[in-house]
Amino acid sequence: MNLHPMKRVTIICESILEDRVVELLHETGAQGHTAFAVRGDGHQGERCADITETANVQIDVILKPALAEALLQRLQTELFADYAMVAYEIDVRVLRPDKF
Amino acid sequence: MNLHPMKRVTIICESILEDRVVELLHETGAQGHTAFAVRGDGHQGERCADITETANVQIDVILKPALAEALLQRLQTELFADYAMVAYEIDVRVLRPDKF
Amino acid sequence: MNLHPMKRVTIICESILEDRVVELLHETGAQGHTAFAVRGDGHQGERCADITETANVQIDVILKPALAEALLQRLQTELFADYAMVAYEIDVRVLRPDKF
Repeated sequence: MNLHPMKRVTIICESILEDRVVELLHETGAQGHTAFAVRGDGHQGERCADITETANVQIDVILKPALAEALLQRLQTELFADYAMVAYEIDVRVLRPDKF
Repeated sequence: MNLHPMKRVTIICESILEDRVVELLHETGAQGHTAFAVRGDGHQGERCADITETANVQIDVILKPALAEALLQRLQTELFADYAMVAYEIDVRVLRPDKF
Repeated sequence: MNLHPMKRVTIICESILEDRVVELLHETGAQGHTAFAVRGDGHQGERCADITETANVQIDVILKPALAEALLQRLQTELFADYAMVAYEIDVRVLRPDKF
């Protein structure tokens, strides 16, 4: 069995940003993604949170390493300055590299 | 504190496949799993998605490395040809290895 | 683009424990977390599960490596003996290290 190294990029942001983030994923070359609602608090604590206690979304996408870097670069340049969001990258191994 | 290397296998599939995947997890030797609903689009894009925009499920399971490989092998042999699904493996470290 | 190595600690426990776990996260120095409901079965199987089929929660937190170890240590010392829960650590790379 061959497993192929890829990156999973996870983005946690306000729900109103979901469409824009998904558009950016597609522009970067992502072939698919998953999204689901999460609760949480963010950098400034629960009271005055810039990421509020409700209505956040986690978006996960599997990408080839070079595309993951391109996506993170664009997130940083285009969205991070203006929005409360978190993005991180994890090493994963997938069965079917042609799907990503 | 001792942390023990394990694999987390994540499977994203149509909800109607959940029972069959969970049965396969148990047959492979998994001691437990989590599942939750996700939205998303898949390989062929949002319009004609083989993974549709609704009613998908993400199933996560922690396994010893050899069992993770056996699970991925069975997913590939028994389900991947017929269903739209994604599976990947992540390195994790757990506190209590006897639970997995 | 600089990515910074961090740990993601994931805790899966009964929903009634969420507040106590989140308090522990804050005491350990976490700047934020996400939480979402999951279904699943645990160590003793679906019938007599100590982690029951409903009402579990997954809590994810990104931490500096030393804080992740401190958190896992406290989870082990203060909660693991008395509660059905799972905790694991994953290597991640983040864009903005000052947020964690």
